Parts: sequence; structure tokens; C-alpha cells
Amino acid sequence: MNCSDKENLKERTLALRDTLDLLGGKWKICILRNLYFGTMRFKDLQETVSGISPKVLSKMLYDLEQNLLITRKVNNTKPITVSYTITEYAKETIPVIEALLDFGLKHRRRIKAK
Amino acid sequence: MNCSDKENLKERTLALRDTLDLLGGKWKICILRNLYFGTMRFKDLQETVSGISPKVLSKMLYDLEQNLLITRKVNNTKPITVSYTITEYAKETIPVIEALLDFGLKHRRRIKAK
Repeated sequence: MNCSDKENLKERTLALRDTLDLLGGKWKICILRNLYFGTMRFKDLQETVSGISPKVLSKMLYDLEQNLLITRKVNNTKPITVSYTITEYAKETIPVIEALLDFGLKHRRRIKAK
Repeated sequence: MNCSDKENLKERTLALRDTLDLLGGKWKICILRNLYFGTMRFKDLQETVSGISPKVLSKMLYDLEQNLLITRKVNNTKPITVSYTITEYAKETIPVIEALLDFGLKHRRRIKAK
């Protein structure tokens, strides 16, 4: 099998990198897992995703929104609040994350036992 | 949910990174996919994994061997040849790779259509 010819390797490689970029960091997965239980305001997210700075949280939320994984809503409250909701589409990432975690956990045990 | 407390986030994050490190590059997945069809010699791998340099191929094979995904055998031929075989364990990476690729391909289409 010649990987370059027989499959569209370039597209597959890009697709793989996209997924890795999208889910590679610990924050995004943690944010998604929080939002999976319901809509949250920025402030609440900052509290539950412990250790994250407001600046980084902002950046992560922006990336997730651009990738259609969450939606952002500005609420007409005083003071104004912003809330985030996971999209139906984002729920498709769950099996991917689980597959990565399962293999990684198993692999760590295996390598440690070597 | 507080990610840090309620789950063993550190271990999960490390496990995730391990998987991403292990499968993140295009070469390793291509090598594994080739070996899935049978044992191959270094020279044959170099031909089918087009575009890879001998130095990089050597490095990738070493990493895969260290991670118990392939075995290396020196054959008593003239000249000496080295052949590589995928381990049973490595076959467990297949669903992980497929999950990453599937989501990535779908995601690219979705983002392009935006």
C-alpha cells in the first residue's frame, strides 16, 4: 500500500491534525465537559475550570465558537452577562475524546509495566 | 463539575497527550497502516511510505518499537536485512485513528461550508 497514492493522504493528514488541534489541549476538553451539563456564564466557567486565567478562557471560548462547538449569547442583564452553550454538533466529539483517553490510559499502564 | 477535583484530570491529560504524541504525526500512522498488511523490510517501507527520508523512517520505527507497537528483527541474510512487524497490541490503535480521522474529515467539511 502506498499511503500517498491509494488514499487521499493529504486530506486525511489535515483532518487528523484538525482534530488534534481542536481537542489537543486540556482546557478545551475540560470546558466542553463542563458545558455538557448545561449553559454556563463566563464567571461560572472560570470557577469550575480551575487554574485557567480569564485571558486564556476567553481565547479557548473564542476558538470553540469559531469551530461551531459552542454558542455565545450576550444577556441583556445589568451588568451584562455572557453565557455559553454546547452545540449538538459538539456532542460528536465525545466518542473521539473517550477513544483517545481510553487508549492513552491503557498505554501508560503498559509502558510503565515494561 | 470541577475538572481538577472530580476526575483525575492530570492523569487524563497526560493520557491524552500520550495518545496525541504517539499518533499525531502522519508518518507513524502511515507506517502502522502499511505494516498492518504484513511484515516488511526497512527498504520496502521506505518505498511505500513515499516522501520519508531513511533518517526519519529510522527514528519513527525506533519510537514505535519503544512504544511496543512494532517489533524489529535482524535477519541473518547476506547482506543483513531488518524487518518490522506490527504487534497485536498496535491493532488497538486502529479504532482511535479511525475516530480521529472520521471526526476530522467531517469537521473540515463543516467548517468549509460555514
